[in-house]
Amino acid sequence: MDYFNREVINNYAPDKSAKENKIVEGFDELFDKLDLKDGMSISFHHHLRNGDYVLNQVMEEIHKRGIKDITLVASSLFPINSPLIPMIEDGTITNIITSYMSGDVARAISKGALKGKVVMQSHGGRARAIMSGDVKIDIAFIASPACDKRGNISATEGNAFCGVLGYAYADSIMAAKVVAVTDTLLEYESKTEIPSERVDYIIKVDSIGDPNGIISGTTRITKDPVGLRIAQKAVEVMVATGLVKNGLCYQSGAGGASLAVTKFLADYMKEHNIVGEFASGGVTGDLVNMMKYGLFNRIYDVQCFDLVSAENIKDDKRHISMSAEKYASPNKDAIVNSLDFVILGATEIDTDFNVNVISGHDGIIMGGSGGHQDTAFGAKVSIIVSKLFQSRIPTIVDRVGVITTPGSTVDILVTERGVAVNCRRSDLKEALDKAGVSYMSIEELKKIQDSFIGEAKVKDNSDRRVIGYSEYRDGTIIDNIYEVK
Amino acid sequence: MDYFNREVINNYAPDKSAKENKIVEGFDELFDKLDLKDGMSISFHHHLRNGDYVLNQVMEEIHKRGIKDITLVASSLFPINSPLIPMIEDGTITNIITSYMSGDVARAISKGALKGKVVMQSHGGRARAIMSGDVKIDIAFIASPACDKRGNISATEGNAFCGVLGYAYADSIMAAKVVAVTDTLLEYESKTEIPSERVDYIIKVDSIGDPNGIISGTTRITKDPVGLRIAQKAVEVMVATGLVKNGLCYQSGAGGASLAVTKFLADYMKEHNIVGEFASGGVTGDLVNMMKYGLFNRIYDVQCFDLVSAENIKDDKRHISMSAEKYASPNKDAIVNSLDFVILGATEIDTDFNVNVISGHDGIIMGGSGGHQDTAFGAKVSIIVSKLFQSRIPTIVDRVGVITTPGSTVDILVTERGVAVNCRRSDLKEALDKAGVSYMSIEELKKIQDSFIGEAKVKDNSDRRVIGYSEYRDGTIIDNIYEVK
Repeated sequence: MDYFNREVINNYAPDKSAKENKIVEGFDELFDKLDLKDGMSISFHHHLRNGDYVLNQVMEEIHKRGIKDITLVASSLFPINSPLIPMIEDGTITNIITSYMSGDVARAISKGALKGKVVMQSHGGRARAIMSGDVKIDIAFIASPACDKRGNISATEGNAFCGVLGYAYADSIMAAKVVAVTDTLLEYESKTEIPSERVDYIIKVDSIGDPNGIISGTTRITKDPVGLRIAQKAVEVMVATGLVKNGLCYQSGAGGASLAVTKFLADYMKEHNIVGEFASGGVTGDLVNMMKYGLFNRIYDVQCFDLVSAENIKDDKRHISMSAEKYASPNKDAIVNSLDFVILGATEIDTDFNVNVISGHDGIIMGGSGGHQDTAFGAKVSIIVSKLFQSRIPTIVDRVGVITTPGSTVDILVTERGVAVNCRRSDLKEALDKAGVSYMSIEELKKIQDSFIGEAKVKDNSDRRVIGYSEYRDGTIIDNIYEVK
Repeated sequence: MDYFNREVINNYAPDKSAKENKIVEGFDELFDKLDLKDGMSISFHHHLRNGDYVLNQVMEEIHKRGIKDITLVASSLFPINSPLIPMIEDGTITNIITSYMSGDVARAISKGALKGKVVMQSHGGRARAIMSGDVKIDIAFIASPACDKRGNISATEGNAFCGVLGYAYADSIMAAKVVAVTDTLLEYESKTEIPSERVDYIIKVDSIGDPNGIISGTTRITKDPVGLRIAQKAVEVMVATGLVKNGLCYQSGAGGASLAVTKFLADYMKEHNIVGEFASGGVTGDLVNMMKYGLFNRIYDVQCFDLVSAENIKDDKRHISMSAEKYASPNKDAIVNSLDFVILGATEIDTDFNVNVISGHDGIIMGGSGGHQDTAFGAKVSIIVSKLFQSRIPTIVDRVGVITTPGSTVDILVTERGVAVNCRRSDLKEALDKAGVSYMSIEELKKIQDSFIGEAKVKDNSDRRVIGYSEYRDGTIIDNIYEVK
């Protein structure tokens, strides 16, 4: 179109009585309106975590309709999503793009059930890929705790309120069509998370999920004494860097040991009257309580990890909802870039500090980056907390099963038998020396590990089928994911 | 890119110390980073109205740099923007896309100064055009009352706080690059209007504008007794339709007579204990006071028309900020579609009810649709309030100078000498009959007008140069705009 040379249409008479109603009655009407067909990309978010009913319900309706060759763009998949397995096996779902995957569906994919590929992204990488158009979404189905008649989606009202919808935000902007799936229709909006102009259709279902399922998976603090010892050591290391001071910006992952670090850090901050600037991430009630106690000025929240957090964000202005883009996208100066520390887990780490959180030692997918890549890049100091070995399975290996987070962004490994510092970070070594905190090279730490359990063999992947990829947050493919026989 | 068949990059090592700082020092650095060049499309918003310093300042810097052939996508232009005239004359600015234009710059364009074309859109049409990609923006410069170091833009902090940035929202999403121009750098965000992930660069200037300029142009209530009589008549007509009742959704334009309607409506609502659901639009302190008094449950605000309104939106949850898309875009079920009434002005209206608010009787541009097209379409009843003639210049004509709002969306004309109802709206005629409110056809009303001032000649445009277009909100070109010699 030559925008500045166009023809006048004379006597143009728009019909002002022709107004849209977004609310549709049932999936048949919805799918007709959406012109749902084979080969489409369909997206979902995981804010209801293992309590989400929407992904299964929509996919079952798609399955019933006989649609094939769907690319499933789900921000995460949980054990509750095992009903997808037959849909993967019969070609309803061909490809999957996600940031985390656990349970039977992850196992089935590792065993080769998917006809296409699985791409594992980080949370920030997912936002980047969607916003840039690398990943195109035909229809985004947004599990909406509440929604008004115009399509203003709220995460703080309704039975399954989850507080925030940070992972659905990019989808709501970029998907060709957006559907709000809700069990709670409001007359008027209340604390809108996704505004009505992004929403094409609204469908009411009996229930979008079980709010108790929000607490699930990896979001419980460890009670294991070894885990607690590691967490205490990690705080000692943090203090040694000199960065635990007023203005601290902090995030921990959702693993049990990472959450324990937060607890011990809180004790230290209280004792030394330290006020941090913000804590970020998926947010637990513990973090909310730290803010209420005055240990942090504010919380940046992309996803509530429990109902205490989801309740708090309703009215507490210091508790700020953020999109995955704002949180972690590599495109712009995201919140992760302001972090002093991030505390993360690892199933494997190699001597180049590359971390695997996608697959277990057996190669079966049981997790994913989530914000791992993003925060490791962004934080001044990224710290991995992990047992050195467990049930004779080593943590430090020569080559991780799937590189999730590149070693150039991982700084310190804290285990129960010692601390290793990435040789790229001589500044951190100096700080630890000064503080009298002992550390060693990761090779030395591996020797200690191997002295207990023997050296593991490097797996030969040469004849294994590639079932997917580990994608870095900037879109680079950094590793293959292989089928496990 | 075949997304599901890609190569692994081995030993990928992102440099975590390479982090962006969005704050640039001065326009030279900014323009270098933006790779500013000839032919680009540059956008601005008008929330600071006739008090805005940003548009002129940025364009003067662009002018200094010798850049040519800019398409200026400004949501509105005001008398303060007259420094653009030499830039139009020397080819710095070639084309202009806007929703409102007044003052010397509008006059110069009418006289043929622009080498390219001017396209006049509605507020909702502008949002649609940007979101759809019909209008592409290379760089959006967003006058930001305050901005934190990451680029979270606030409209409620800073010296020139304007409350809302509804017109800049689409630009912030779709522009290739977004620059926050601010005089107030915050350490941390406060009531973010445009989130940091949309902002590429931040530049600090001495002052973004004069907050007193926000009250300007057409936003003062009339004191003229004839205008007040028209306003009272309009309320009588509204009541006759039966729609002035609990749940009322209401908007008035920013013209003096329209604002007077709001005042008399408030009196009626008080007297009859009516509680409306919402008032929307550009929002004045009067509207805020009506909400505080309990006459409306909430306000939807795309732009604050005075500082009382801008102050109120800081903390009043019932006062809801909205983007131009949410307000008025034709794509989705916008707020305008819920309106019962809109009260609007007209410089001319023809016997098909087509309205001109772009040009005066002399053909010189002196306004624009703003939300005129959008609300006339959306409201159940759209009412034009206008004097029948002024200084012997007729309001009702055979053919308006520039069709801004198609007659099929305009329902009632209220003048000091009578009311005309669009023949398409037999339902409204019935209601008025029932209520005993007299009305006539627009042809009859024109006869009354002509009996005072004589019949105007229809202008012959056949040999006049087309300098631009009136675009309908859905993108259709509905009229030419001609040069005035």
